[in-house]
Amino acid sequence: MFSLHPTLEQDCIVLGSFNLSLLLLMNDSRYPWLILVPQKNHIQEIHQLSEPDQIQLIKESSCISHTLQQVTEADKLNIGALGNLVPQLHLHHIARFKHDACWPKPVWGQAPAIPYSPESLGHFKQALLTGLKSNSNHLPFSASQ
Amino acid sequence: MFSLHPTLEQDCIVLGSFNLSLLLLMNDSRYPWLILVPQKNHIQEIHQLSEPDQIQLIKESSCISHTLQQVTEADKLNIGALGNLVPQLHLHHIARFKHDACWPKPVWGQAPAIPYSPESLGHFKQALLTGLKSNSNHLPFSASQ
Repeated sequence: MFSLHPTLEQDCIVLGSFNLSLLLLMNDSRYPWLILVPQKNHIQEIHQLSEPDQIQLIKESSCISHTLQQVTEADKLNIGALGNLVPQLHLHHIARFKHDACWPKPVWGQAPAIPYSPESLGHFKQALLTGLKSNSNHLPFSASQ
Repeated sequence: MFSLHPTLEQDCIVLGSFNLSLLLLMNDSRYPWLILVPQKNHIQEIHQLSEPDQIQLIKESSCISHTLQQVTEADKLNIGALGNLVPQLHLHHIARFKHDACWPKPVWGQAPAIPYSPESLGHFKQALLTGLKSNSNHLPFSASQ
């Protein structure tokens, strides 16, 4: 049985799941930030996944990247698998803007997150889920209730 | 005709090429650091690559990740496509150690690089190329002269 790392569980909102990965939204309103977590225990690095799972991961990653770019109109995406603090494999997708607080530096390890208000969270989730629906035709995605 | 971004050309040593990507070694002896650059012009994001190229990229990435892990015995790999300063798509693979200067923070945008000595560069290149040879059985790689 797969279980999500407690830090990811605490910092994020589960939006749903693809065939391989859980899709999380980082609860930090400063940066539109999605995370994929392959539902495999004891995996810390992408190259430790089987080859079919690696291919599935890059398809899921491209699907959410495309959606994040569409929804946010970001200047740049930052994609990364670091895991220096949370070893469970997770792949960040962060929409970056030339006017954001950290630009052009990476956002990891910066000042504490500012959680979404219930209203802005609702709007952003809705926009993401609508975008995913139109971009994931051949990539099944189940939204969380 | 593909051309490498001048910043990558200045900061890195070209080790060779896979079918899709150039393989670069960042000339910074503080961190063992490989970079893949898909040889496609005008591409800034992974999801802008064709699906076959995305799959080829993750195979090349896993091959060099496996080799970097074997050669360095790193505590963790950090993989990332940022591109906030250099927009040409490039995928970082950095071997991280719990005793390195930045741990557990990301290494991007930290103090200036410390170039390899000719001797240590020669040794590290040789170890990487030997490792790649044994890990890239079905993934053709041509080493630079």
